[in-house]
Amino acid sequence: MDTLTEYKALLSDIDKLNSAVSLLQWDQRTYIPAGGHAGRAEVLGKLSKMAFELATSDRLGDLIASLEGVDDLPELERASVRVVGRDYRRNKAIPPDLFERFTIARVNSESAWEQSKDSSDFASFAPHLSEMVRYAQQFAELYGYDESPYDALLEEYEPGMTAARLRTIIEPLKAKLVPFLRHLMEDGSAPDTSFLRGSFSIEAQRDLATEALRAIAYDFDTGRMDDTTHPFTIEIGPGDVRVTNRYHEDLILSGLFSALHEGGHALYGQGIPETLRPLGLADGASYGIHESQSRLWENMVGRSLPFWRCFHNKIADAFPALGGRSPEDLCGAANVVQPSLIRVEADEVTYNLHIMLRFELEVALLAGDLDVMGLPDAWRDGMRRYLGVEPTCHADGVLQDVHWSAGLIGYFPSYMLGNLYAAQLYATARRELPDLDKQIEGGRATVLLEWLREKIHHQGRIYEPETLIQRVTGEPPRSTFFVDYVTEKYGRVYSL
Amino acid sequence: MDTLTEYKALLSDIDKLNSAVSLLQWDQRTYIPAGGHAGRAEVLGKLSKMAFELATSDRLGDLIASLEGVDDLPELERASVRVVGRDYRRNKAIPPDLFERFTIARVNSESAWEQSKDSSDFASFAPHLSEMVRYAQQFAELYGYDESPYDALLEEYEPGMTAARLRTIIEPLKAKLVPFLRHLMEDGSAPDTSFLRGSFSIEAQRDLATEALRAIAYDFDTGRMDDTTHPFTIEIGPGDVRVTNRYHEDLILSGLFSALHEGGHALYGQGIPETLRPLGLADGASYGIHESQSRLWENMVGRSLPFWRCFHNKIADAFPALGGRSPEDLCGAANVVQPSLIRVEADEVTYNLHIMLRFELEVALLAGDLDVMGLPDAWRDGMRRYLGVEPTCHADGVLQDVHWSAGLIGYFPSYMLGNLYAAQLYATARRELPDLDKQIEGGRATVLLEWLREKIHHQGRIYEPETLIQRVTGEPPRSTFFVDYVTEKYGRVYSL
Repeated sequence: MDTLTEYKALLSDIDKLNSAVSLLQWDQRTYIPAGGHAGRAEVLGKLSKMAFELATSDRLGDLIASLEGVDDLPELERASVRVVGRDYRRNKAIPPDLFERFTIARVNSESAWEQSKDSSDFASFAPHLSEMVRYAQQFAELYGYDESPYDALLEEYEPGMTAARLRTIIEPLKAKLVPFLRHLMEDGSAPDTSFLRGSFSIEAQRDLATEALRAIAYDFDTGRMDDTTHPFTIEIGPGDVRVTNRYHEDLILSGLFSALHEGGHALYGQGIPETLRPLGLADGASYGIHESQSRLWENMVGRSLPFWRCFHNKIADAFPALGGRSPEDLCGAANVVQPSLIRVEADEVTYNLHIMLRFELEVALLAGDLDVMGLPDAWRDGMRRYLGVEPTCHADGVLQDVHWSAGLIGYFPSYMLGNLYAAQLYATARRELPDLDKQIEGGRATVLLEWLREKIHHQGRIYEPETLIQRVTGEPPRSTFFVDYVTEKYGRVYSL
Repeated sequence: MDTLTEYKALLSDIDKLNSAVSLLQWDQRTYIPAGGHAGRAEVLGKLSKMAFELATSDRLGDLIASLEGVDDLPELERASVRVVGRDYRRNKAIPPDLFERFTIARVNSESAWEQSKDSSDFASFAPHLSEMVRYAQQFAELYGYDESPYDALLEEYEPGMTAARLRTIIEPLKAKLVPFLRHLMEDGSAPDTSFLRGSFSIEAQRDLATEALRAIAYDFDTGRMDDTTHPFTIEIGPGDVRVTNRYHEDLILSGLFSALHEGGHALYGQGIPETLRPLGLADGASYGIHESQSRLWENMVGRSLPFWRCFHNKIADAFPALGGRSPEDLCGAANVVQPSLIRVEADEVTYNLHIMLRFELEVALLAGDLDVMGLPDAWRDGMRRYLGVEPTCHADGVLQDVHWSAGLIGYFPSYMLGNLYAAQLYATARRELPDLDKQIEGGRATVLLEWLREKIHHQGRIYEPETLIQRVTGEPPRSTFFVDYVTEKYGRVYSL
């Protein structure tokens, strides 16, 4: 067997183990009976470990090294070796016994967080968070970096991105967004949402969410949608990319937009060519690019008037009480802006402000400029500056997100980048597809999907996110597109 | 790590891989989207191979050998080494390249069978069947046997059973059953089933099947029931034993009894203690014993008057049209006897006759006494002798079952043994629990379940099936109990 064949076979073995892991995880969060959880954790642990052992095997290291030495490697194979090689070196950077200690500490930290969140008790979680920060600091040193330890962690989620580069994206955004939000709140008139009050059958909501997925051309022959507590999208294997969703009886739009969000992730997964799989390139380019696909379909499409002109019949069929509402009414109600304490409930205008705060705090924690015990004050201060609101308890503040308790530092910026990429991509799509609004209004969202397929989905992990955005939009990632998008849209919705 | 600890750890690794395989299979037959099948086959192939490699590893062989040499091994550990050692030697008996050739031939044979069955064309399937028989002959020689090559294959499904022993069980059964069936058909009066004609909502049937599982104390906290095409029960892992079921709009009892049948398998799985798992003993004692549990709940309980006295309200709630029917009416309609061509549709009286025929034919094929081309004639002849009916096409005759096409020779007898064991166990249970009928009538089937737990479920694979039956019932497996059961019951139902 030649080197390339063996390299692909090994990647394929890892891929198959990961496929089993994905199904075990999907089932764990959808259908597993209560009694199955303990055993499932063991099975998941074993299979994940087997996949990790293959992914960090000396054999894979040798194969990567010898392919790196081949001069005339075709372009795709070269991209594969670059991407797989980077993952390999990162995986190998952490000594197994350190990683095992971290894994145990993380499990303890996560359960401490759960308890602390319930009782809104930061003090008892703080030692765990300090430990997670110390691990992150250690990992950053082991991964290595040029400028800032934060860059070493960011690399996991957004290859090529740095803290410095992020600041150049964030600063102009912040400068526009904070005053715009104030202007909106003080001078704008909020759309009417009174007609959304009521009780809406979960079953009808589920059917409506299915219709929404059909409307954006999610392929149910290579996927499905099931109920869960915290919605997620998961690629189980070739031809099988599944969405999960949840519904609240009193919040009719919540399950609908969450379906569109997950549907956006899933369209990305369904659009990545199988030819990239044997090369380890059959995945999203980054967390940020993945998020751009979910946010584009959820917000740029799903919260647009053309979409509601097409979709308002569906909601009227499902809920006759809403039958008298115009597309404008429904779309308006889907675009309410309200500074609030909780990130996951934030609207398009305020969402990025939550992320900016987390980014600042993460950088400061990692650099040792901020002590964990000082975090709640810094949090309150930031919330006041960016959003004009302040939590009265830690559960609504610094304890609200699971990420830090699991040692995930450097993850949050990808949520913001997703919003910015989405706006930049959508602006480009509208330029290149001048009748896009009409197409969406006519129920032909596939026009947009085909554009995204060609520009983004078909590229898998071939390019780093910045390169990909540059190639598709002709410019490096910038916040201007997002600023233009929200100021135009919300200026209109709020009659500024 | 001492030998026993390492042995258990290795068995536990195999168990975890098999758990993932089970979930992949369950999903493949319940929720997988159409596009996922091809990829799933690859993942399943890879993980099954990994489990098989561990199960046939030299390390496991060494561990077994050294534990076999330990004089003071505790009883449970000794049972483990006996059972695991036997599996190991059987797995090692087939050279990997022979097994691989067989696997490929089997896949071809199965798809040839599917096509042949559709067109009822035996001739084009015959060469594949001949090949499967040749593989079975080869495997029997490699496994080894004392008397008959058939014994080597039987061992897979019913450890310790032999063809000669089976004949001593079958002959008296046949001698009673064939004339009894004739008597029943000629002199009995069949119960009324006319009120079962109609269209019954699938959803209501599903709810009713769920009620039936609750009625036999299936634990939904460690299991669930989902729709599928061909019902099966599968143990996914500790605390997770799942049932699947299917429904026909015009056959209200079919889905109900299939739920009870699968429920019986699942109660067995749910009753096996976790302490047996690290020893590789957490499984049914044999295919026949497993089938005894499904048949006991499906037939001895589910088709009994005490059960219907308790359950008839449920069916009346689900289907008001049946509200006026007495427990006697409903139970009668569930106990119709009709000699027919298709095994899986056969009633309690005729079912074993189908199996006897298959057993005779399998033995003759394996011994070379019957040529594959002579099979259809032999089939017709046997059906006439045992059941008094003859197929007019191969699809309703020799092509009806999938087993032979997959090289599964020696499997069928476990269906019959299941029926016989069930009757023998139930007779014992009624002797030891004199008010059993009253308990079942009062909705306390758990009394029976607790008895089965103690006698059968808690033993896992510790004993060979014959030993287990002897221990629980005080006698070796015999057909008398079954003969008494059907002659008494159907004599009554048919007013002989």
